[in-house]
Amino acid sequence: MSGPSIVRTQILPVDRPFKFESGGILPRIEIAYETYGRLSEHKDNAILIEHALSGDAHAAFYHEGDKKPGWWDCMVGSGKAFDTDRYFVICSNILGGCKGTTGPASINPDTGKPFGLTFPPVSVRDMVEAQRILLKSFQIEKLKCIAGGSMGGMQAMQFFCDYPSQFESFISIASAIKHSAQQIAFNEVGRRAVMADPRWNDGNYYDGIAPEGGLSVARMIGHITYISEKMMQEKFGRLKKDRDSRAIFRPSFEVEHYLDYQGISFVKRFDANSYLYITNAVDNFDLMASISAKERFRGQGRERGMNIGELRSKKGLVISFTSDWLYPSSQSKDIVRLFTALNVQVSYTDIATEHGHDAFLTDYEKPSEIIRGFLASLG
Amino acid sequence: MSGPSIVRTQILPVDRPFKFESGGILPRIEIAYETYGRLSEHKDNAILIEHALSGDAHAAFYHEGDKKPGWWDCMVGSGKAFDTDRYFVICSNILGGCKGTTGPASINPDTGKPFGLTFPPVSVRDMVEAQRILLKSFQIEKLKCIAGGSMGGMQAMQFFCDYPSQFESFISIASAIKHSAQQIAFNEVGRRAVMADPRWNDGNYYDGIAPEGGLSVARMIGHITYISEKMMQEKFGRLKKDRDSRAIFRPSFEVEHYLDYQGISFVKRFDANSYLYITNAVDNFDLMASISAKERFRGQGRERGMNIGELRSKKGLVISFTSDWLYPSSQSKDIVRLFTALNVQVSYTDIATEHGHDAFLTDYEKPSEIIRGFLASLG
Repeated sequence: MSGPSIVRTQILPVDRPFKFESGGILPRIEIAYETYGRLSEHKDNAILIEHALSGDAHAAFYHEGDKKPGWWDCMVGSGKAFDTDRYFVICSNILGGCKGTTGPASINPDTGKPFGLTFPPVSVRDMVEAQRILLKSFQIEKLKCIAGGSMGGMQAMQFFCDYPSQFESFISIASAIKHSAQQIAFNEVGRRAVMADPRWNDGNYYDGIAPEGGLSVARMIGHITYISEKMMQEKFGRLKKDRDSRAIFRPSFEVEHYLDYQGISFVKRFDANSYLYITNAVDNFDLMASISAKERFRGQGRERGMNIGELRSKKGLVISFTSDWLYPSSQSKDIVRLFTALNVQVSYTDIATEHGHDAFLTDYEKPSEIIRGFLASLG
Repeated sequence: MSGPSIVRTQILPVDRPFKFESGGILPRIEIAYETYGRLSEHKDNAILIEHALSGDAHAAFYHEGDKKPGWWDCMVGSGKAFDTDRYFVICSNILGGCKGTTGPASINPDTGKPFGLTFPPVSVRDMVEAQRILLKSFQIEKLKCIAGGSMGGMQAMQFFCDYPSQFESFISIASAIKHSAQQIAFNEVGRRAVMADPRWNDGNYYDGIAPEGGLSVARMIGHITYISEKMMQEKFGRLKKDRDSRAIFRPSFEVEHYLDYQGISFVKRFDANSYLYITNAVDNFDLMASISAKERFRGQGRERGMNIGELRSKKGLVISFTSDWLYPSSQSKDIVRLFTALNVQVSYTDIATEHGHDAFLTDYEKPSEIIRGFLASLG
């Protein structure tokens, strides 16, 4: 194949009510998705990729005319970890997001205005249920694998546990079965930053200027936690870009310029209410609690309900990064413990890197090798 | 002595121009200070205590009618680490602060209005120079020790290096000779949070409502960094105070309530512009650079100018805390290396604690023992 692979984001309209775990109901939703590679005749080569907080359906390849490819193009493509010559890879934007799938910025058909805070609270399980509708539209019964990093790993584990018959395996990268107090704390400060911005206006800002100041501060906090202290030091140290001491509260250190840039570029592409909904979903994610709750409901006529026996022949791959202090390796070890107890055959590797949490997006060589081998080991 | 010791904050008016390192000049300043214990006849038992970012002159004892004592009452008092039965302890509010010493919220006599951003940029050296004026008013030629934690340690080291003949020793607790990129990054996000608040209004908010939303977010970020991940987990975990899932963006986790409380209580007692000035001072603090610059000026008729030889007979005590990830032990080891190279006799101890950076305020037993011994070892 010559030249870059071109892809378009597609929309699946779902013209029936979608019920949220919180009880809220939307009369219809839309799901934005992309696919890479070809679905085999027997429909047995599909892999579902889950994106993290600020990701979208555009995991790989190029949009027509774009200079940058999708967010996981280093991992998804011909000859890459998720090899599109062999696998049919699907990625969709999460429910509650702002990249094509229905979320708080979408128009409420009842009012003709954006939902804002009338959008129902979203859970990781809700995100998974929306993806289940997407998979049904492909008439795929069983996927080779479901994989994701960070919040993507949470979705992968939730989907895998909720519908074990639908997957041969899962891959969790730099993720957790639940947030620690510190992870909740960082997200809470981000939410407070958005909500302290008067332009947020209780979520009703779509007619005017978005709460860009607050959202940008939230993103800056995130970026500190995404890279390791050591890498930040090596990259920026105490280098100064601007030595004008009169401008004392303007960025002068290079690390300040970097964070400012990250904040500003984020507000151009992300909806502040989606940020609140999604961080709320991950803070409230608790895989063990959700499995236990479902076990209690088993046999009571509910469609969902895990059969632990079904997990017995499954495989899991857990990857963490030594310098990731936001999702530390100890949390990946908790994942290994839980799935091993659930009779899943789990492989675990703690990859030495200085890239911190961002390694799942930026330091792809070692993970690629491991993922390639893991996928090849499947039936 | 029975009953709590009562103390009052006093004001030293300085009715002559104060020149800042940045070149700015104020025609007069005021310095707020407190003292504990009695100055000996030979004026040879004085210790200067330096406060951290949000501290003030009220280090110990009680203000009339108060239920809570000063911020370091666990360390300063009769029989305590800084034993007021033996030592005369002085603490003053820093220049640029908002607790009595002249700062951006003080009235500019030329305009009759608060300085706001017309206040000159403050450096750690400026803070120290103001304290030097205070010491002169006591006619104390030489102090037993200068001691402080966090930013207080920076002041202690700067003062000690700028005027070595004035001190027998210094104590630095959980401090650094310069901020890392990550430390600058956390401060920068705090500053951005303040400045993104429209009420900040380029520092002109004294007639109206202060930028409480922004300042409170800045303080919340700080509090995450002040305690260890483990302690936060043990204290809060995933406990919920409010299970009302309809109120999705109100604090529900206990750690969220804790941070909210910290943010709200801080804005009641602190000036947002002072926050900007002080964090700017610590980010720009670079002890080695400032010593080198001064060495170059030596003998050029300047009053300041370190004589490295004068440090030879001095002693230093450096304390860090194993779980302090904001000012990690590696930074205290850098302090030890620098002062050892400067011929100071340095003792260093890395105290095992889960209190994180806050240990210098909250986990006082082990540091007290060490400081008591260190002070006793002095001439």
